[in-house]
Amino acid sequence: MKLGTLKDGSRDGRLVVVSQNLRRAAVAVPPAATLQAALDRWMQTAPGLRAQYAELNAGTASNAFDLDLRQLTAPLPRAPQWLDASAFHSHGDLMEKVFGLDPPPDKLQIPLMYQGASDDFVGPYDDMPLPSEADGIDFEAEVGVIVDRVPMATSSAAAGGHIKLLTLINDASLRTLAGREIRTGFGFLQSKPASSFAPVAVTPEELRGAWQDYRVHLQVKVSWNGRWFGHPHAGQMGFGFDQLVAHAARTRNLSAGTVIGSGTISNNDYRVVGSACIAELRGIETLDRGKPVTGYMKFGDSVRIEMLDADGHSVFGAIEQRMVSASGRPHRDEA
Amino acid sequence: MKLGTLKDGSRDGRLVVVSQNLRRAAVAVPPAATLQAALDRWMQTAPGLRAQYAELNAGTASNAFDLDLRQLTAPLPRAPQWLDASAFHSHGDLMEKVFGLDPPPDKLQIPLMYQGASDDFVGPYDDMPLPSEADGIDFEAEVGVIVDRVPMATSSAAAGGHIKLLTLINDASLRTLAGREIRTGFGFLQSKPASSFAPVAVTPEELRGAWQDYRVHLQVKVSWNGRWFGHPHAGQMGFGFDQLVAHAARTRNLSAGTVIGSGTISNNDYRVVGSACIAELRGIETLDRGKPVTGYMKFGDSVRIEMLDADGHSVFGAIEQRMVSASGRPHRDEA
Repeated sequence: MKLGTLKDGSRDGRLVVVSQNLRRAAVAVPPAATLQAALDRWMQTAPGLRAQYAELNAGTASNAFDLDLRQLTAPLPRAPQWLDASAFHSHGDLMEKVFGLDPPPDKLQIPLMYQGASDDFVGPYDDMPLPSEADGIDFEAEVGVIVDRVPMATSSAAAGGHIKLLTLINDASLRTLAGREIRTGFGFLQSKPASSFAPVAVTPEELRGAWQDYRVHLQVKVSWNGRWFGHPHAGQMGFGFDQLVAHAARTRNLSAGTVIGSGTISNNDYRVVGSACIAELRGIETLDRGKPVTGYMKFGDSVRIEMLDADGHSVFGAIEQRMVSASGRPHRDEA
Repeated sequence: MKLGTLKDGSRDGRLVVVSQNLRRAAVAVPPAATLQAALDRWMQTAPGLRAQYAELNAGTASNAFDLDLRQLTAPLPRAPQWLDASAFHSHGDLMEKVFGLDPPPDKLQIPLMYQGASDDFVGPYDDMPLPSEADGIDFEAEVGVIVDRVPMATSSAAAGGHIKLLTLINDASLRTLAGREIRTGFGFLQSKPASSFAPVAVTPEELRGAWQDYRVHLQVKVSWNGRWFGHPHAGQMGFGFDQLVAHAARTRNLSAGTVIGSGTISNNDYRVVGSACIAELRGIETLDRGKPVTGYMKFGDSVRIEMLDADGHSVFGAIEQRMVSASGRPHRDEA
């Protein structure tokens, strides 16, 4: 099943069921007007949504319409929590080398994870407003899961069952600010502006054989200003999402709709397959040539992030967006 | 004006106006059923709430009732963001010494701040369920502000005007987990379980002369199992809340209802005035005697946090709660 959220001027948008080929959609029948409402009572709402999805794919849904993916905002325009890991060891190892950081001795046992802002997510084709090019604007292509309610201290064994949906995320990052924030020990805050999301979130069975060990065994395709940047494989995660969810829930409840990210996708052979963020390429350049050569993004630059299944079809639709200056833009009204 | 949230079984509770002496309350007249709804349109909702508050204090409110503060949950049972600073330098300096951390060279210019969970706040008299005593259970008494919508890159000069309410917070902390999380550079996650809040939030003018330089110039009174633990003065903040709000909004929008905390209240003469968290006392013991002597909280232990005005009256009502084991407790249903 594939689900999206139609922009309708409201804060949470309108839940739609999206066809497997991403070309048709149907407004979800009550009782779930929003994806958040569906997740709050998933056991009750999922069966009806699945039935709608089957009708939509069969061409028998009465209220179906042709979908332009640009009609969609983030599947959850806001979420109760957004917790992002750094679960690809090839990326972490490289960053430690470049920045001369001491690796946590138990880094293969305990995931790295921070909490980011979840109240202002950006849609897949929407511009991403940022205050300054000097902050070192970067993208990070990653996979994320959306859970139903996870009670505190849920085990890894039980955590996997709470994963209801998967999606793609652009965890935009401001690298000039990140180094200082890591060194303080308090972690990322200003260096992590709003994140953006793929047009749809899909249930795990939609991935068929590519969902194994609570990992997505597919490549992510990343391009910057229309040029190939990387296609690392998301299956190389050092932790499964079951472990990430359990880590997040160790001392807190996770409300339904909590989003947990993999961290930037990265592979050991990053010199061959490329990267999913500029910081990684700059790290490679620093190792190989003594200093970074590639600059960060400029205002007007665009990034495209997509994941294709074994048949070459887009699973989540693409994130495709420009970084733009926040100054002078009209702000959303308080009401 | 003082505002609270009546427990009514719903996720966001029911907004009430609370009398200055905390003894009477009245359900807020429409259009604001919840504090979040009031903050979303503060310019439109605040005048009516102020009028109700005046009637309540004058004894002329038609729908007033005798209030037991235990009827109240956190003023915002959930919030769009919860960003917590460490704005008292005496505390930071001590922790750096004890843990042998390198102080950030610009720590007097740039606040330390992390993002915590804001989807599951705990009421002032409610038990705080936690997974294990071995995690090093601590309290942290602090002041917090609640803002209306703050657009990205708002200056400190403009940020102060976005502060609509103030309250007291118990930023419960799990110290055994915190040291590792600081050393990874990713910051606090498992070491920061759900936070709890005082019964009411108050508008700045309610503090009269005690609200100066965007700081609350009053002592916080902290007791542990009924015994005095400290009464540090909150006016010694190294940054004003205007600066903290601007720091938080540097690269992101803050939705109305975002809560920003001061970090544990601490004074230079902590050996005289005591502390607002156990970790600080243990730090002093480590400096003075070579090792910490005081243990952390046990299940069943209670903490009480309150702030009195110049006349000795409680400003926010008290936080008074027990730490309890989460295991075996019934979990809130997903619906």
